[in-house]
Amino acid sequence: MITIDLNSDLGEGFGHWTLGEDDALLDVVTSANVACGFHASDASIMRRVCGQAAERGVVIGAQVGYRDLPGFGRRFIDIEPDALTQDVIYQIGALQAFAAVAGSRVAYVKPHGALYNAIVHHEEQAAAVVAAILDYDASLPVLGLPGSAWLRRAKEAGLSTVPEAFADRAYTPKGTLVSRRLPGAVLEDAEEIAQRCVAIATGEPINDVEGGSLTVMAGSICVHGDTAGAVEIARSVKAALAAAGVTVASFVA
Amino acid sequence: MITIDLNSDLGEGFGHWTLGEDDALLDVVTSANVACGFHASDASIMRRVCGQAAERGVVIGAQVGYRDLPGFGRRFIDIEPDALTQDVIYQIGALQAFAAVAGSRVAYVKPHGALYNAIVHHEEQAAAVVAAILDYDASLPVLGLPGSAWLRRAKEAGLSTVPEAFADRAYTPKGTLVSRRLPGAVLEDAEEIAQRCVAIATGEPINDVEGGSLTVMAGSICVHGDTAGAVEIARSVKAALAAAGVTVASFVA
Amino acid sequence: MITIDLNSDLGEGFGHWTLGEDDALLDVVTSANVACGFHASDASIMRRVCGQAAERGVVIGAQVGYRDLPGFGRRFIDIEPDALTQDVIYQIGALQAFAAVAGSRVAYVKPHGALYNAIVHHEEQAAAVVAAILDYDASLPVLGLPGSAWLRRAKEAGLSTVPEAFADRAYTPKGTLVSRRLPGAVLEDAEEIAQRCVAIATGEPINDVEGGSLTVMAGSICVHGDTAGAVEIARSVKAALAAAGVTVASFVA
Amino acid sequence: MITIDLNSDLGEGFGHWTLGEDDALLDVVTSANVACGFHASDASIMRRVCGQAAERGVVIGAQVGYRDLPGFGRRFIDIEPDALTQDVIYQIGALQAFAAVAGSRVAYVKPHGALYNAIVHHEEQAAAVVAAILDYDASLPVLGLPGSAWLRRAKEAGLSTVPEAFADRAYTPKGTLVSRRLPGAVLEDAEEIAQRCVAIATGEPINDVEGGSLTVMAGSICVHGDTAGAVEIARSVKAALAAAGVTVASFVA
Repeated sequence: MITIDLNSDLGEGFGHWTLGEDDALLDVVTSANVACGFHASDASIMRRVCGQAAERGVVIGAQVGYRDLPGFGRRFIDIEPDALTQDVIYQIGALQAFAAVAGSRVAYVKPHGALYNAIVHHEEQAAAVVAAILDYDASLPVLGLPGSAWLRRAKEAGLSTVPEAFADRAYTPKGTLVSRRLPGAVLEDAEEIAQRCVAIATGEPINDVEGGSLTVMAGSICVHGDTAGAVEIARSVKAALAAAGVTVASFVA
Repeated sequence: MITIDLNSDLGEGFGHWTLGEDDALLDVVTSANVACGFHASDASIMRRVCGQAAERGVVIGAQVGYRDLPGFGRRFIDIEPDALTQDVIYQIGALQAFAAVAGSRVAYVKPHGALYNAIVHHEEQAAAVVAAILDYDASLPVLGLPGSAWLRRAKEAGLSTVPEAFADRAYTPKGTLVSRRLPGAVLEDAEEIAQRCVAIATGEPINDVEGGSLTVMAGSICVHGDTAGAVEIARSVKAALAAAGVTVASFVA
Repeated sequence: MITIDLNSDLGEGFGHWTLGEDDALLDVVTSANVACGFHASDASIMRRVCGQAAERGVVIGAQVGYRDLPGFGRRFIDIEPDALTQDVIYQIGALQAFAAVAGSRVAYVKPHGALYNAIVHHEEQAAAVVAAILDYDASLPVLGLPGSAWLRRAKEAGLSTVPEAFADRAYTPKGTLVSRRLPGAVLEDAEEIAQRCVAIATGEPINDVEGGSLTVMAGSICVHGDTAGAVEIARSVKAALAAAGVTVASFVA
Repeated sequence: MITIDLNSDLGEGFGHWTLGEDDALLDVVTSANVACGFHASDASIMRRVCGQAAERGVVIGAQVGYRDLPGFGRRFIDIEPDALTQDVIYQIGALQAFAAVAGSRVAYVKPHGALYNAIVHHEEQAAAVVAAILDYDASLPVLGLPGSAWLRRAKEAGLSTVPEAFADRAYTPKGTLVSRRLPGAVLEDAEEIAQRCVAIATGEPINDVEGGSLTVMAGSICVHGDTAGAVEIARSVKAALAAAGVTVASFVA
């Protein structure tokens, strides 16, 4: 039996401001990356999303980021590694409270935005996030980009690592993501995206951005939910996986 | 054997800014009310203070407050009760992460500043904080002002309540605190303060602000540490209690 | 010639989060209440909205509020009056920079949300906001609720005051707004709202919530733009005023 | 007649937290770099410091920084250049309001902390800060490190630039500052520091960190006031300059 996880960023509003289609996404994904209040979300949002995720049996993960509400966590911050470690622990702890109240728990960690991108290469910050997991709970799996310093260091430290693929992003021949600034970086055809996800889940090669063949190894596929169109795509992905006989299930036991 | 707890507010700096004599106080008190980042403190401070408290066997409590760094949590905020409940849970959860990393745990909750004062009378906010404890962990004892709506509601809800006395504050004949705006509200003589604390711990009456006799029932005495003088007073209180045969110990088993 | 001003709250997003239909509203209103970063907005939003307002000849006013991004300025904060004065000056100054860069200026002040409501009755905070205008620029007109402490004190201090009406809100027989918690508080029929606005502008009585007759004196009418429907209503109001021969123009010379 | 300016960072507290000896420094310096609320300070502090500076005839400059209260502006943030431009304008505008209320004005701009350091080399951010001054008021002089991209670009754009020296920092043979992480980076002997400042003011060479001779061209010398010792050093510098016949005066006409 072939299984794959679907994860999505959720709880990314803030106070009076809303973002994304949390409800619709929770009916599609198996893993909810819930923002923890540093770059998005707040206590009320976390309470609600954790409750909804728990009700639906969606696994809750901590979407940790830089302390940067004004920049939505999309700006690299050259924070001291030790302070980053503590900021990550703080966020996981806050989310864990709401997960526990909902009868669930924080079951994995996925960095967000500029932090996600930074720790592909930034060794000190990658080590700092790994240190946070080791300090807090070394049994938590971590999600990230295949080939990143983050996953390498996490693995070396004995953490369980889950490489993820992106449903709607073009890949270079090396398996890295095509920069959003380049044409063709983001796929928009729901059918094409769905078939790519089936290929990834079943270990078949996909086309890279230059037309070559690329096999992407992933334990989870990230789908987006910022727009109505994105939700439709997420649903198509799920349906195509089911049609192909792939079981969509969390990577957490 | 007579026992009393000594508690103090700790971890009240923020980023580059420091406040109070955390190290010195941790050698005196048995309960550390650690700020959780909403009105003071941050992840790095919480990590450090929890570590130091755990090393010394000082019990860790969550000093929860309004989300108000600019006002240090000293401004009443008319927040919706449900949002207040979630803000309190968030703070306890974040602190619990650092307490656990230090090999300890959040063992009680004490509201701070304007929230402390508001829930003496504000029934909806008092209920909201009680609801947070019930949701998060109904076994957590709570600290507060004797006679407050907060302690009454907490007790009605089945929580363990610990009324506290203030070492250096004058009391009215009714047992409430004399407003800081009135003369004589704050005691400054270390010897007088120490003897008052011995009286409170042993159930003897003290003088109220009008010279009458008042018996203050308390399971904990709050001492301050914002100034060098305050630390000296805290030490005097502890020494006087020891000399009087009172055991200074946490109210947490 | 009968004239009336139309004002609306603009620039109320924050960072990655958007809110309201700023562009559409700027084609309707004559006065833009631009949020200043304390309860909503940020420097980039202020720059953009000031530029767009200036291009269209829409007058720029400072929408000042409590320092409360998490609560969108909708929570009363018991801030010390002197600190409130300084917070208001800070916000006007920041907005003035962007207005000036756009070739315009901050031409009036309108408090937002909980501050707007508080200074209907809260004498100390009303005085604090008046003090801010006096300190900063006593020639700035101020917008507010007829009968409020805010407008009374502003007038006593020599400020130019502009009472405003609300296009889509029901009024009590006394001329105050029906609480949003009561049924019928918010009107939704575009035609009815438009005719009400014509009546208000021309000094004709409208129906109060109990069916009686009420004359609302206003120099400006507040229209909303949070939803697509709200923008439609705003356009209807403007068209109805034009059809009735009312000139829609700013109260600022 | 030889003249030199003395500048210092002021108003760097936040809310309940204090930092530095503002009062003592204001009796020494001729230029006050007042923080604007993004990395330190708040409206109440800005009001007070601007008032005190104006009373003493100390010139007010905008100490602009990244939006980073948790990190005191000491963490590089990879903010989009256009957003940085707006953030700088916002800060200058807010400070200008308080300077004007005090009967003074913002008369120059000096970036702070990580922004100061970033724009020594970071061309896009340097250009963004220059753009802010050009947009806001191209007549404002700017303070910075000799040889920085910031001063070079400012000069190219037609701004008046003022290179500054640091009273208590060691210099490399190339005229850059010795990193604080290296031994000998910070001078502590008040007499040595004072004589260095006299040399810099009079165009005489000083010793670089390797014992060579170095002439530092500066229109202003930065003195610190974070500690009681720092204030003493600042006073010594001023006395030595006076004794050497150097007039201490602002670079602003």
